[in-house]
Amino acid sequence: MRDFSADHRWLSLNTATVRKQGDLAEIIEACARHGIRCIDPWRDQVAAIGLERAARAVRDAGLELSGYCRGGMFTSDAGHRIEVRDDNRRAVDEAKALGAPCLVLVVGGLPQYSRPGSTPSKDIAAARSQIEDALAELLDSARAANMPLAIEPLHPAYAADRACVNTTKHALDICDRLDPQRSGAIGVALDVYHIWWDPEVLAQIERAGKDRLLTFHVCDWLVPTTDILNDRGMMGDGVIDIRSLRRAVEAQGFAGYSEIEIFSNAWWQRPMDEVLQTCIARHRSMV
Amino acid sequence: MRDFSADHRWLSLNTATVRKQGDLAEIIEACARHGIRCIDPWRDQVAAIGLERAARAVRDAGLELSGYCRGGMFTSDAGHRIEVRDDNRRAVDEAKALGAPCLVLVVGGLPQYSRPGSTPSKDIAAARSQIEDALAELLDSARAANMPLAIEPLHPAYAADRACVNTTKHALDICDRLDPQRSGAIGVALDVYHIWWDPEVLAQIERAGKDRLLTFHVCDWLVPTTDILNDRGMMGDGVIDIRSLRRAVEAQGFAGYSEIEIFSNAWWQRPMDEVLQTCIARHRSMV
Repeated sequence: MRDFSADHRWLSLNTATVRKQGDLAEIIEACARHGIRCIDPWRDQVAAIGLERAARAVRDAGLELSGYCRGGMFTSDAGHRIEVRDDNRRAVDEAKALGAPCLVLVVGGLPQYSRPGSTPSKDIAAARSQIEDALAELLDSARAANMPLAIEPLHPAYAADRACVNTTKHALDICDRLDPQRSGAIGVALDVYHIWWDPEVLAQIERAGKDRLLTFHVCDWLVPTTDILNDRGMMGDGVIDIRSLRRAVEAQGFAGYSEIEIFSNAWWQRPMDEVLQTCIARHRSMV
Repeated sequence: MRDFSADHRWLSLNTATVRKQGDLAEIIEACARHGIRCIDPWRDQVAAIGLERAARAVRDAGLELSGYCRGGMFTSDAGHRIEVRDDNRRAVDEAKALGAPCLVLVVGGLPQYSRPGSTPSKDIAAARSQIEDALAELLDSARAANMPLAIEPLHPAYAADRACVNTTKHALDICDRLDPQRSGAIGVALDVYHIWWDPEVLAQIERAGKDRLLTFHVCDWLVPTTDILNDRGMMGDGVIDIRSLRRAVEAQGFAGYSEIEIFSNAWWQRPMDEVLQTCIARHRSMV
């Protein structure tokens, strides 16, 4: 396992971590100040300053990307299907324009939450089936653009409203069905927040192998968690044995960034520089 | 599948559902008023009025029990192990005195939350191993008392602080290792709240079979969920396809009660009679 204690060259900042403190241009400037050399921006942050300006800012700052957040939300009623398809194709194009190594996918839960206005449903099996069909379709466009798709299994707490692919096993089952040749065109985005509880996670990371491990996210699970979406912890403040998960991923040959993605009402209230300084310190001591 | 629409003879009330509205004696009186013929009481509610009085009240009201909540919290540091063992043996004795058909077990998460004062740990694999050892030991006492143990897999959101057995598969793997002969001495307590998201749940219910299906709980998953522990929904108010899960359980021969267990800051503020009337109506229309 790589030693992160001496520097933060393998730290990537998911820009949602400081989304309330500044726009993407300001976040990129802050990364330059703090010697952070990689980011994973969100689509709404890119849209807010414009795709061209975002791509130029990334280039000018000499930044790499560890991913682009996010495509997905595939579940909808019939009336929203074209919208879903076109939205995801645009996400692939944006990822390409920004030079991202993969498009991270949050696949959607039940249609009424994934695409508001869709007819409500409680049929989670149907939602899962629709996700797989939509992924198969998007994979054609993504292959053509040479943009790998990274399915992010989300914690089961989000099964209804954000993603009903909730285990690494389920995500890899989909990858195996859509890409049995392990071409690199589809894999997983693993975030310790979503997978730490899973008794099968180490075996599934081994199953994934380097081909399928497209990106790796870190934060921490707080006890108590006061908000299901926006109370994620800074690494070291919670209960996740982060290093054992990084060790497992790196044992498969993963040599990319450890991307810090923290949705937190508490951290969003602190100054950007303080958050980044803390991220850097914890990356060295806790990741 | 049984038709619940005409009456509520198969409704059991987990007494935590109205724990803020009255003590166990008052809850039992309310059940009599509403023609509810089965309950699942909690240990603290029994202790508050005394075990003998509780047992007499149950008998006098002609109530059945669908379970006794709860044993478990097996994870601790070495200094708390005798306490854990003795506490669980007492739970078996109390279940017996009350005439419960099984002791429901919430197995514990990391030791510092399961048994406060224990040395903190992030080693979830060690916690799981300790749980299995403690279950094996308790099973001896439980067999002697002829009291089946029902492992309740909890939603992964509770992995840190309440139970790190989070899937039906994991619970059944433990049952198979401790009781390969399927003697009836150990099985699972399935609550739709904890299992609805699991893509393997229907296959695992089939694997469980009648021998291992000791009790079945219902409530609903609300979107949004505003409190991880105490914002469970009344059946029909959330996203769970409850009937498909009851159908799966009954297809294995389960013919017991559908036990309503709702931890809810909202429902705890309503009058007991209103809550019970709503439970009865929803049992008939949504379960």
